[in-house]
Amino acid sequence: MSNEMKQFVLAEIPQGKLTPENFRLETAPVPTPGDGEVLVKTRYISLDAANRAWMQGATYRDAIEGGDVMAGGILGEVIESNDKNFQVGDLISADGGWREYVALPGKVCQKQPQVDELTNLLSVYGVTGLTAYFGLLDVCNPQKGETVVVSAAGGAVGTIVGQIAKIKGCKVVGTAGTDAKCAWLVDVLGFDGAINYRDGNIFKDLKEACPEGIDCYFDNTGGDILEAVLFQMNMYGRVSCCGAVSAYDGAPPAAGPRGVPGLLVVKRLTMRGFIVSDFFDGSSVGNRDDAIAQLREWVEADKLRVLEDVIDGFENTPAALVGLLAGENRGKRMVKVSD
Amino acid sequence: MSNEMKQFVLAEIPQGKLTPENFRLETAPVPTPGDGEVLVKTRYISLDAANRAWMQGATYRDAIEGGDVMAGGILGEVIESNDKNFQVGDLISADGGWREYVALPGKVCQKQPQVDELTNLLSVYGVTGLTAYFGLLDVCNPQKGETVVVSAAGGAVGTIVGQIAKIKGCKVVGTAGTDAKCAWLVDVLGFDGAINYRDGNIFKDLKEACPEGIDCYFDNTGGDILEAVLFQMNMYGRVSCCGAVSAYDGAPPAAGPRGVPGLLVVKRLTMRGFIVSDFFDGSSVGNRDDAIAQLREWVEADKLRVLEDVIDGFENTPAALVGLLAGENRGKRMVKVSD
Repeated sequence: MSNEMKQFVLAEIPQGKLTPENFRLETAPVPTPGDGEVLVKTRYISLDAANRAWMQGATYRDAIEGGDVMAGGILGEVIESNDKNFQVGDLISADGGWREYVALPGKVCQKQPQVDELTNLLSVYGVTGLTAYFGLLDVCNPQKGETVVVSAAGGAVGTIVGQIAKIKGCKVVGTAGTDAKCAWLVDVLGFDGAINYRDGNIFKDLKEACPEGIDCYFDNTGGDILEAVLFQMNMYGRVSCCGAVSAYDGAPPAAGPRGVPGLLVVKRLTMRGFIVSDFFDGSSVGNRDDAIAQLREWVEADKLRVLEDVIDGFENTPAALVGLLAGENRGKRMVKVSD
Repeated sequence: MSNEMKQFVLAEIPQGKLTPENFRLETAPVPTPGDGEVLVKTRYISLDAANRAWMQGATYRDAIEGGDVMAGGILGEVIESNDKNFQVGDLISADGGWREYVALPGKVCQKQPQVDELTNLLSVYGVTGLTAYFGLLDVCNPQKGETVVVSAAGGAVGTIVGQIAKIKGCKVVGTAGTDAKCAWLVDVLGFDGAINYRDGNIFKDLKEACPEGIDCYFDNTGGDILEAVLFQMNMYGRVSCCGAVSAYDGAPPAAGPRGVPGLLVVKRLTMRGFIVSDFFDGSSVGNRDDAIAQLREWVEADKLRVLEDVIDGFENTPAALVGLLAGENRGKRMVKVSD
């Protein structure tokens, strides 16, 4: 092992759309783990729309500042351990950042099971799958026969939300940014309908696709899609607020959706924001282990298709995130850093 | 009893602010109750901000159209009954409208108990008190030591919400439209703070009044106050969406509050709309009878002050509603129609 490694620094906070030029590739010494720390070799970097939101200010984590190593979820292997809870060879997930090696306190690392497909630990059995599971089943609690809409339906979380809603006997309509992706949602993933939000009238298209109204909405986007959905929600509808990707890559939105709070009162709607770790210790549909067991059962029974989009090579990480924000990916995008 | 009675018709849907001239006083025959109906003599008409919202379109009830007798809650006495569940002399509440007599199906009438102060049936023991009770305790579930903000705090519901929150050991801050009303909230009702939203900077004033952030918000107004509150909510905060009076009396708002849904995600907030009847058969804090019993206990123990603003004379009903929308009232406004 060389004593040097590569890492990406966020050179400056983007003022508009993120570009690969906002990042700077650097060489740095491989860190030495301190007391209670482990040295982790990065195997995969998870790419998530939230990475862009972290540049806008403090969220559920500190803001990323210009000059910081870019933050991001990783799947890695422990290669040196000063924490008795971890052994060399353990697989862990953590917010390790965009670098080939990272020293982390053991307590911020989540030990991962051995699985056939390592990448599944970042997709269906990781934050992605768990976000879909808890955000749909706990927050929305969809009932058989109800209509469920999910935005960014072709993305990592959206593809799983839609499939779980189908497993639960719901009618499922997704929104996506290209006709090809919409066709794929219907033909390959079994959605009942899909709407290209970039083309046409989202309000009218939703009305056609959901003639009986919308009972549950899993919101990854906020913005115009949220507004159009709110006006078509049925009584006692539930909105699971998972993300607001429409507001991440550019200037913050000047205003929120019309109809808030008026439509919430009239239709007795609930909107609830969450992040996945809120549910790890328990929820109306079990804890983290329960969720993984259920997801695994669905995957093994071929009821839930795992969709991954693996980009090869650490150097491609910035472009892969920019592409994700533009909607290039289908399913869970990640970067393979090392074998 | 004469065969004629007075009634107010909504002559036309107001395009901007409501004025007394939007109503027309008419004479009509006293109706004859049909099968299953009761004839009710109106004693009091309840005035509510929601009356104005009903003119904007269908809500949880059909829209009021120009030419309709104006809708509104009443407290009345059964003077003739073709429904075996009601006897002459029974007190009932119903959406009877602005008229001196009304024939109603028995099944839309709610029988009322005999109480010392009849007006209490429209205030603390009626929709007003129950809305405050369920909307605060079930939807917000405030905990001792938390900070609760209520808008339209000097109004019928707001005065009760603030007092219940104090009973529960919360810090309570209200918003109102005049300095005099704000002083009254603090000096007479025991609020910890009150903010004149018409004067000054609502965001800054809230920050000063709630240095530890806001845990629960009982929203009667929507609009700028909701937006300012959302940005100052604490993690896992709860917003009870009761009404949106800022949006009722004029053009519909061009946009919703900024921060929706972004702040909901980051802070894991819940916003939930309700109307009071959702809880009559049960809630996390009991059903309708439980709520009335609890409110009565607080009133009789002098922990909850009943605030009523009774306008005398049927002819004054339109001006009384216009005044309510302008914030004239303190506590529950109603019109006394007959002894």
